[in-house]
Amino acid sequence: MSTRFEIVTECPVTRARTGLLRTAHGTIETPLFMPVGTLGSVKGLTQRMLSEELGAQIVLANTYHLFLRPGHETIAKLGGLHSFINWDGAILTDSGGFQVFSLSSLCKVIEEGVVFRSHLDGSEHIFTPESTVDVQWALGSDVMMMLDECTDYPVSKDHARSSMERTIRWADRGFQHWQTAGDSSGDEAMSSLSSDSLQPMLFPIVQGSMFPDLRRECAERLVDMDAPGYAIGGLSVGEDRRLSFEMVEAVEDVLPRVKPRYVMGVGALEELAEYVARGVDMMDCVLPTRNARNGYLFTSEGSLIIKNSKWKADDRPLDKTCRCYTCLNYSRAYLRHLFLAGEMLFCTLATLHNLTAYLDRLREIREAIQIGEFPAYLARVRSANWRRL
Amino acid sequence: MSTRFEIVTECPVTRARTGLLRTAHGTIETPLFMPVGTLGSVKGLTQRMLSEELGAQIVLANTYHLFLRPGHETIAKLGGLHSFINWDGAILTDSGGFQVFSLSSLCKVIEEGVVFRSHLDGSEHIFTPESTVDVQWALGSDVMMMLDECTDYPVSKDHARSSMERTIRWADRGFQHWQTAGDSSGDEAMSSLSSDSLQPMLFPIVQGSMFPDLRRECAERLVDMDAPGYAIGGLSVGEDRRLSFEMVEAVEDVLPRVKPRYVMGVGALEELAEYVARGVDMMDCVLPTRNARNGYLFTSEGSLIIKNSKWKADDRPLDKTCRCYTCLNYSRAYLRHLFLAGEMLFCTLATLHNLTAYLDRLREIREAIQIGEFPAYLARVRSANWRRL
Repeated sequence: MSTRFEIVTECPVTRARTGLLRTAHGTIETPLFMPVGTLGSVKGLTQRMLSEELGAQIVLANTYHLFLRPGHETIAKLGGLHSFINWDGAILTDSGGFQVFSLSSLCKVIEEGVVFRSHLDGSEHIFTPESTVDVQWALGSDVMMMLDECTDYPVSKDHARSSMERTIRWADRGFQHWQTAGDSSGDEAMSSLSSDSLQPMLFPIVQGSMFPDLRRECAERLVDMDAPGYAIGGLSVGEDRRLSFEMVEAVEDVLPRVKPRYVMGVGALEELAEYVARGVDMMDCVLPTRNARNGYLFTSEGSLIIKNSKWKADDRPLDKTCRCYTCLNYSRAYLRHLFLAGEMLFCTLATLHNLTAYLDRLREIREAIQIGEFPAYLARVRSANWRRL
Repeated sequence: MSTRFEIVTECPVTRARTGLLRTAHGTIETPLFMPVGTLGSVKGLTQRMLSEELGAQIVLANTYHLFLRPGHETIAKLGGLHSFINWDGAILTDSGGFQVFSLSSLCKVIEEGVVFRSHLDGSEHIFTPESTVDVQWALGSDVMMMLDECTDYPVSKDHARSSMERTIRWADRGFQHWQTAGDSSGDEAMSSLSSDSLQPMLFPIVQGSMFPDLRRECAERLVDMDAPGYAIGGLSVGEDRRLSFEMVEAVEDVLPRVKPRYVMGVGALEELAEYVARGVDMMDCVLPTRNARNGYLFTSEGSLIIKNSKWKADDRPLDKTCRCYTCLNYSRAYLRHLFLAGEMLFCTLATLHNLTAYLDRLREIREAIQIGEFPAYLARVRSANWRRL
């Protein structure tokens, strides 16, 4: 499986590296950031904008949401998620565990899995480590996530440990199912599992709340299964940012250097380089897209609240250094007008801009690593005067 | 002024004709249909989609809404509406009269004009025939509309007559203001008014409710002012469609053949050719865009309600004969999913499709007239089995 990820350049000072992640839907340069398309659409953008304007190579979709609506069987019947949403790039699917714990009206953890009620119609379902692999396989995901138990924060160490133990037991079951389901089902797609074809990868998720020793132990035990990659979950749940970094640092040297590492649900624009410096290859976050819709925009000089009256007659683009469609064509004054008037076009233009800021940031980071200047780049990011415009 | 509109082909049987409408922002083929961009945005579309995907050459914006927010003075400061919204094509602005009568919380007609309160903040304003010309001029509109009195429907003939009389008195004042304001103000843009430059046109509006004799009288009296074009207003207010056609027929031979005729706020897809057959050159309507957002889609075979469960696993495009981005890339099943999930992308894709249906319909109509086959085309439209898919 190690051929699925190749390290290209390593920073001699930090843990940063560039690499290539091979999927059936393209080979993707890392470190990467995934736009979030929970329901099979990055809110406000067409798929053409995603590929042509943003140059996105991979997006994230959500198993919980797609399982409930329109259903993985419907999507499978329509040729899988790529075909259904008309997206040729790669797709990573979250297992849906996080959404079960945060959205559903009933959520009961049993050893078998997690029983929940749909937030849409109250219907009862169970997600197991095995079933979530099956659902993601039916979706045709390129990178699947393991079902994990998501605990509240803060939580006692005892609770964190027992939850982590369950996450490991579930990971063992899910991984075994992923490895053997193909042989036992006779399904063609699954039977190619043992070959070196570009089959879906499955990432177990490191948990352990904010306890570094639990995080290390969890990582050590998950490493034994020699998975194609590892995710770090349970961060960005309200903790101080230093603590998030510390949890990543706690497991970085435990996780195999040759495997991709994905920190789930991070981060702010100015934090991206920090995670990369700590050996992270993959990130996703709703911040650029959700903030865009709320009128909070990222620029090279700082953040900008579009509804502020000072932009009323400002004919400048959001960011004069940005080459996105929004900045090349529209003024702050027009964007403010669209926002105040509740026009959908605002969401489209703002999302295009914020995601451009994120994906451009990752391009800068990769280039800095490639030319051996990542430490200097990181220092510049840290000393930048990030302010409210 | 007659050089601003040129008739190219006339149908020998019906009153249909093709023509060219010259504006400072392009020469536009007629008959034409204008997408509605009330607040300076066609809901759900970028301006690039409007020009590149749809080939739209002219859009409609609304004086009432832009006057209130962000204000015509702000827009003028930013270089006018074309610059503000980043649109190089032509813009027709409604006078705002209709919105004053339908949206504002207070609406008092006096001889001077109409006093109203903003539906946004309750602030009191007055629109006069002169001020609405000034506001539209500040916006930089290519085709301006005269302030008219919009009556309820149905209404007594006495009321319809007195309202029509006021509309004519206002039109005289507005037209005189449009003709002379340039000289008296010394404003550069306005001082070029008497030359043959591509200055903004001003269309008076024929009223008279559903009384053919009032309509004819109104048209006769407005024709005396030799305006660059004439609008027919007060239709699509709840009347039977035959009555709308009858009102257009009542004035068609009164309005100068050499001037463009604009029927405001019409119509359904299958009615477009009917208006053209009655000598109409310009139309606008929220139907394609509003219906799109509500999941009501136009296809060559009939209308389609996207939320219908029968599309759940339908991998066909909305319309296999349509060449729009939506039909070339997305299935009914995906569109239904987006609609049910409340994803913005649905509005974008549906609006693109419905407006393509409308603009393609106008292209067909123009071509049929040009090759002398409009009567046969009209007969086909009339006999088409327009149904609910």
